Amino acid sequence: MSFETIDCQVSDGICTITLNRPDQLNAFTVQMANELVEAFTRVNSDDDARAVVVTGAGRAFCAGMDLSVEGNVFGLGTDPEPTMADMQERLDDPRIVEKVRDTGGRVSLAIYACTKPVIAAINGPAVGIGATMTLPMDIRLASDKARIGFVFGRIGIVPEACSSWFLPRIVGISRALEWTYSADILTAQEAYDGGLVRSVYAPDELLSAAYELAHRFVDGHSPVGVALTRQMMWRNSAQPHPVEAHRVDSLAMYYTSFGDGVEGVAAFNEKRPADFTAKVSTDMPPFYPWQD
Amino acid sequence: MSFETIDCQVSDGICTITLNRPDQLNAFTVQMANELVEAFTRVNSDDDARAVVVTGAGRAFCAGMDLSVEGNVFGLGTDPEPTMADMQERLDDPRIVEKVRDTGGRVSLAIYACTKPVIAAINGPAVGIGATMTLPMDIRLASDKARIGFVFGRIGIVPEACSSWFLPRIVGISRALEWTYSADILTAQEAYDGGLVRSVYAPDELLSAAYELAHRFVDGHSPVGVALTRQMMWRNSAQPHPVEAHRVDSLAMYYTSFGDGVEGVAAFNEKRPADFTAKVSTDMPPFYPWQD
Amino acid sequence: MSFETIDCQVSDGICTITLNRPDQLNAFTVQMANELVEAFTRVNSDDDARAVVVTGAGRAFCAGMDLSVEGNVFGLGTDPEPTMADMQERLDDPRIVEKVRDTGGRVSLAIYACTKPVIAAINGPAVGIGATMTLPMDIRLASDKARIGFVFGRIGIVPEACSSWFLPRIVGISRALEWTYSADILTAQEAYDGGLVRSVYAPDELLSAAYELAHRFVDGHSPVGVALTRQMMWRNSAQPHPVEAHRVDSLAMYYTSFGDGVEGVAAFNEKRPADFTAKVSTDMPPFYPWQD
Repeated sequence: MSFETIDCQVSDGICTITLNRPDQLNAFTVQMANELVEAFTRVNSDDDARAVVVTGAGRAFCAGMDLSVEGNVFGLGTDPEPTMADMQERLDDPRIVEKVRDTGGRVSLAIYACTKPVIAAINGPAVGIGATMTLPMDIRLASDKARIGFVFGRIGIVPEACSSWFLPRIVGISRALEWTYSADILTAQEAYDGGLVRSVYAPDELLSAAYELAHRFVDGHSPVGVALTRQMMWRNSAQPHPVEAHRVDSLAMYYTSFGDGVEGVAAFNEKRPADFTAKVSTDMPPFYPWQD
Repeated sequence: MSFETIDCQVSDGICTITLNRPDQLNAFTVQMANELVEAFTRVNSDDDARAVVVTGAGRAFCAGMDLSVEGNVFGLGTDPEPTMADMQERLDDPRIVEKVRDTGGRVSLAIYACTKPVIAAINGPAVGIGATMTLPMDIRLASDKARIGFVFGRIGIVPEACSSWFLPRIVGISRALEWTYSADILTAQEAYDGGLVRSVYAPDELLSAAYELAHRFVDGHSPVGVALTRQMMWRNSAQPHPVEAHRVDSLAMYYTSFGDGVEGVAAFNEKRPADFTAKVSTDMPPFYPWQD
Repeated sequence: MSFETIDCQVSDGICTITLNRPDQLNAFTVQMANELVEAFTRVNSDDDARAVVVTGAGRAFCAGMDLSVEGNVFGLGTDPEPTMADMQERLDDPRIVEKVRDTGGRVSLAIYACTKPVIAAINGPAVGIGATMTLPMDIRLASDKARIGFVFGRIGIVPEACSSWFLPRIVGISRALEWTYSADILTAQEAYDGGLVRSVYAPDELLSAAYELAHRFVDGHSPVGVALTRQMMWRNSAQPHPVEAHRVDSLAMYYTSFGDGVEGVAAFNEKRPADFTAKVSTDMPPFYPWQD
């Protein structure tokens, strides 16, 4: 599978995924959804990709669902109509995948499952799915040209891409409701003030800031340790009791203490840089993944 | 049922619920609890009520449980004494409803289930249940005369009205513990600094600010889209995995894409205001409510 | 059991637990883990201990796991290797407790279960388990000499002590990921800016500030009310639906309204200080603990 709507390049340890329909302001399509799912899945098995930076080609990040594409989201229809039981029991049934499942949500779940740190570099307008797809990314950096809008309310639909799970976690329930009710377009500064964006940059400094941050996250660190850290933070924090984290922590500490932890402690004691060798592609501990 | 302890008026698309025992500083009674539950239930079926603003008559918002009313919270007693099994298996048993269930909690659950945006306009003292009843409201605005106190610790009881679920979501676990342990009375500014209150106003500007915000949330938006957004944000964000949001998102997008989404996209493409026609009273999609 | 690695003193209603290996910068050992678990368990049955302050002897809070102690965390090994099923079904099996369960997590769970307010007074470096053990404490105060580091990524292991459950609750998921990915050492000011630390003090003012805050939390308040408040906030807020809080609230209000609530309301009405008599050691209501 080669990509047509995105570009995906690994360089210097970082995978850059670029939404790449600049003439359409990188508007989202079903094809783009499928290519993003594939790209994030590939990242998991590519040991050269230590972290992921997501940005947009040209002046936009992503202008939202491409409403000019016939049947893109609307009008598919099923017979009989889908029920919650369908979504609980037949989520991977092709009829449900193709005709019912929210395409943005498939992308969000693939990002959620990623084993590398994911940084959004929001270079311009990020609207609708262009905004919600950044929420399962770990950290959002923005150009001062960024404009972020959860605009679903303006067109009679609802916030999607699991944003009702992610957005309140990031900015709190009250702000999440205000932003989705109002459907306003936020400036980069407003997104920063609300806690959605970590930091704001001049346009020509955005990508280098994203790469610098990505390197701080992975250089000299154990890739398996980083992968477990990401999955532990996202998954354990949503459990109803900390003992669920304890079960996972215990196994993660156990297995890393026979893996990269041996070298890590030796290097620490010898005051030298560690030389970690465990690979995400082949050396994740046997209890991983512990959920799904 | 006509109301004696509250006033409930719909005007210009907004339902104003006024706690209305001004001579008792709007102190809370079992009757007020029942009337609030009824008012929030009615709002769900009243398509003229697009949003809700809650405030207090006179100089207070709500001075807490009216401790001068005999048997208001205390001294009811049951035989045998209630157990957790009772609360899990017989929550709607009249004996449990009348003698055991926290009255404030019944109000909070009714607000939680509301399908319209709910804004608290805290015009003065909001103490005890007067404070906790505002937590399931989406956003809190305050007059600079507001004083907010989670004072349960001072009288030997505990924070109620599901506040142990809501307050940490809004202000974080550490601040929630500090405020309930200390049982301090917070100024409007302290409540703002702690993230409890969105913004603070001069007393005579509070209600108009609440109405202005409410209009930003509903004018030109799909009532069904807004209703689904509210329920999705509150409910999905508390689930242990984002796939639970995905199940709901998918159905919500599916059904709205055949409903107000058709008009919404047409209006967007034609650069004209949308004319949404779906009603909350009759047109919520068949999967709603997906929980409870 | 007398303590060798910690000091535990009750004075003026406050239990001070001091990590007490100053020559090793209070580095953590399995013995210290066991002693901390025991100390927090004892606190629950000691009615003279109304609140807990945790600090470090000498210039450090806790420099992390003592990596100079052979077999401290590494190299125990089991046969066969542990699985998630082991952690779910045999968590208290001695083989799992001794050879697999994360020692820091056992401490965190003991702090989580504590029925008294717990305040960390971080007097100096708090690194690794020295940082993560403070997360289940209710509030963190810091000296301006404090340095806090979630440094696991530097040595090839993972954040433990249930920190993947606690840290995102306290500072948000994005900051939790940034701090654990980067494994940076934070200054007291950075920890404050990120919401980890409530307030920062000159070194010689830290402990008195902790005691002052502890007294604000317990003086004149019902110990049983405080105990229920702590457990309700931590436990209910993590449930998937507010009705779970309502079940607990209702019982907690019911039983306290026949307990210290009688005196609390009487004292309130008579405008005099309350004289609460219920004890945590003997008078917790029958539904407690409602979870685990």
